[in-house]
Amino acid sequence: MTKSYAIAVLPGDGIGPEVVGCALDVLDAAEERYGFRTERSTFAAGANHYLETGELFDAVEAQLRDKEAILFGSMGDPRVTPGILERGFILEMRQRFQQAANVRPVRLYPGVPTPIADLTPERCEMVIVRENTEGAYVGRGSTVHAGTPNAVAMQESLNTRAGIERVVDFAFRLAVGRRRRLTLCHKTNILVAAGQLWQQVVADVGERYPEVEVDYVHVDAMCFHLPLTPERFDVVVTDNLFGDIITDLGAVIQGGLGVATSANLNLDGSAPSMFEAIHGSAPDIAGKGWANPAGAILSLALMLGHLGEGEAARAVEAATVEVLGSLPALAGAGMGATTAELGARIAAIVRDGRA
Amino acid sequence: MTKSYAIAVLPGDGIGPEVVGCALDVLDAAEERYGFRTERSTFAAGANHYLETGELFDAVEAQLRDKEAILFGSMGDPRVTPGILERGFILEMRQRFQQAANVRPVRLYPGVPTPIADLTPERCEMVIVRENTEGAYVGRGSTVHAGTPNAVAMQESLNTRAGIERVVDFAFRLAVGRRRRLTLCHKTNILVAAGQLWQQVVADVGERYPEVEVDYVHVDAMCFHLPLTPERFDVVVTDNLFGDIITDLGAVIQGGLGVATSANLNLDGSAPSMFEAIHGSAPDIAGKGWANPAGAILSLALMLGHLGEGEAARAVEAATVEVLGSLPALAGAGMGATTAELGARIAAIVRDGRA
Ligand SMILES: CC(C)[C@H](C(=O)O)[C@@H](O)C(=O)O
Ligand SMILES: CC(C)[C@H](C(=O)O)[C@@H](O)C(=O)O
Repeated sequence: MTKSYAIAVLPGDGIGPEVVGCALDVLDAAEERYGFRTERSTFAAGANHYLETGELFDAVEAQLRDKEAILFGSMGDPRVTPGILERGFILEMRQRFQQAANVRPVRLYPGVPTPIADLTPERCEMVIVRENTEGAYVGRGSTVHAGTPNAVAMQESLNTRAGIERVVDFAFRLAVGRRRRLTLCHKTNILVAAGQLWQQVVADVGERYPEVEVDYVHVDAMCFHLPLTPERFDVVVTDNLFGDIITDLGAVIQGGLGVATSANLNLDGSAPSMFEAIHGSAPDIAGKGWANPAGAILSLALMLGHLGEGEAARAVEAATVEVLGSLPALAGAGMGATTAELGARIAAIVRDGRA
Repeated sequence: MTKSYAIAVLPGDGIGPEVVGCALDVLDAAEERYGFRTERSTFAAGANHYLETGELFDAVEAQLRDKEAILFGSMGDPRVTPGILERGFILEMRQRFQQAANVRPVRLYPGVPTPIADLTPERCEMVIVRENTEGAYVGRGSTVHAGTPNAVAMQESLNTRAGIERVVDFAFRLAVGRRRRLTLCHKTNILVAAGQLWQQVVADVGERYPEVEVDYVHVDAMCFHLPLTPERFDVVVTDNLFGDIITDLGAVIQGGLGVATSANLNLDGSAPSMFEAIHGSAPDIAGKGWANPAGAILSLALMLGHLGEGEAARAVEAATVEVLGSLPALAGAGMGATTAELGARIAAIVRDGRA
């Protein structure tokens, strides 16, 4: 019997629908070629939907919960106050679905131009694993004497042993299947309480993985090492806020937001994981066919791997990398093909098993 | 009568004494040429001194307090537990001397190689102003259930209106004398309490500087904009932790730690300001003559500007930039000259008024 997976599709705003449309074309091709099926439910979500209905994550939570995975486009629109969608949808999903690990591969694909001088693909092949549910993202803060000259704002970072442990254990397991090197990124010399707990957990969990070499780098120094000596890193594990920052730097190195992708993984099977490109909704280029669908299609590859369709995942990734490497520019009119054409090209390679 | 300034010199550890030695040679030259004097008091401080005596900032506070400026080398040694010197000396000095603004020019000097493809000096000319006394650096954190599976570590960021206001006002004043553009860097969509206070202060203070255009960039997006579109920035103002991170990225862009420099400014005249290169003590190359003294000499230039010796400051900077641009490599054996030789070269240019 053909395997079938129930997935939710959230195209979102701006270029989201375009790039997710490409990912779905590629998914069609992968299904044909690799003999599995998906049952897709599409949900309206994002800025436009919020402006029309006032609905945020709450409205879809129950329907998303029984899916096996979520394919996500992008959200955002200048008409919505910054923070509303981020907190009301994205962070809400990460927390309620306990998507404990935000996984971002940082790979320089052959043929893709990087802004870093002399960087070569062999030197840049790492995964950044970001804690995705706590730290400064718990959104706990308060202000006293607001609106007066004596105002004081306090912002808290909350770190639980359980929250750190699950993501650190995941990172170690990932390292075991790779180059067996794990780097903790933090700022332990300043953020002492949080830093000590992170270091302790890495030390404790590391005892279960004696084959993995453990390393530590301060987040400020990471700004040096990531672009200049990326070969030093295999798996990097870090907290929510530092992860937010350094993964954007990772995306720069690998050629930009158009190429970068991420998985928000639930690690205990209690709720679905979510897969998304790293780029935003880019309303300025929406509808022009100028968006690069690679990020979205690579997030599809991560999703397929997560569902257990490893062969299809590898084929989708390889086809995307092949097409990416042939582009004269990574986005915009200079790409030499429209978003949809690139999607079709990648789908064709997958369908023909040419990758 | 010749003006004389009382300055403290803290060479510190590793390459600190070498590069500060060069800065003092250049200072001699500047004094000769521009007709002022300094009365220099040198203090032992840093890892070696701590290992010998257990002394940290406390021990020198009183003697430093009546100086007009502090020229600082670098501190650190693998034998000292990370955090001891940082918190016991550097942060202690920043707080007790109320060095409210950490000012880091990010300039790509002509002839200096940058790892960023296609970046040119005209496109990279900004100053990052980092709040230097509060935020996550207040060192307030606590752990409950430590050592148990239920451990929770809390780390606080404390932001006062007064603390933000003084650094934001300083940043606006700086912008008025430059390209009149100020960018706030924060993560207001997530760190809501702290973010709102920062935004409010920037809006309020900005009313006093209507000629300055105000802009906002999230700290994660900053990782994109700094390397890829640095021309967008004139003065960037940010909190202590974000400043720590993005200024290291700034240093990467301008060619590395050897070139980057910083001022820790007391803004109310209640205590001395401190000037230092951004690089660490680099114990691995100490004593070899491989350190680039440019960072330290450029920090001397900042100090001279601060003391009111603007002409000397500009001459020292110009001479350093000239020599920097002629080096085959920015550090190490490939530099083509020793640390001391470079110092002498720069001093000679300043002395002869050739820059
Ligand atoms: C949209 C925003 C809430 C989000 C974050 O800060 O985590 C984004 O920057 C990311 O990295 O996924
Ligand atoms: C040494 C350390 C305490 C310091 C900091 O974190 O501020 C350093 O990284 C810096 O940027 O000056």
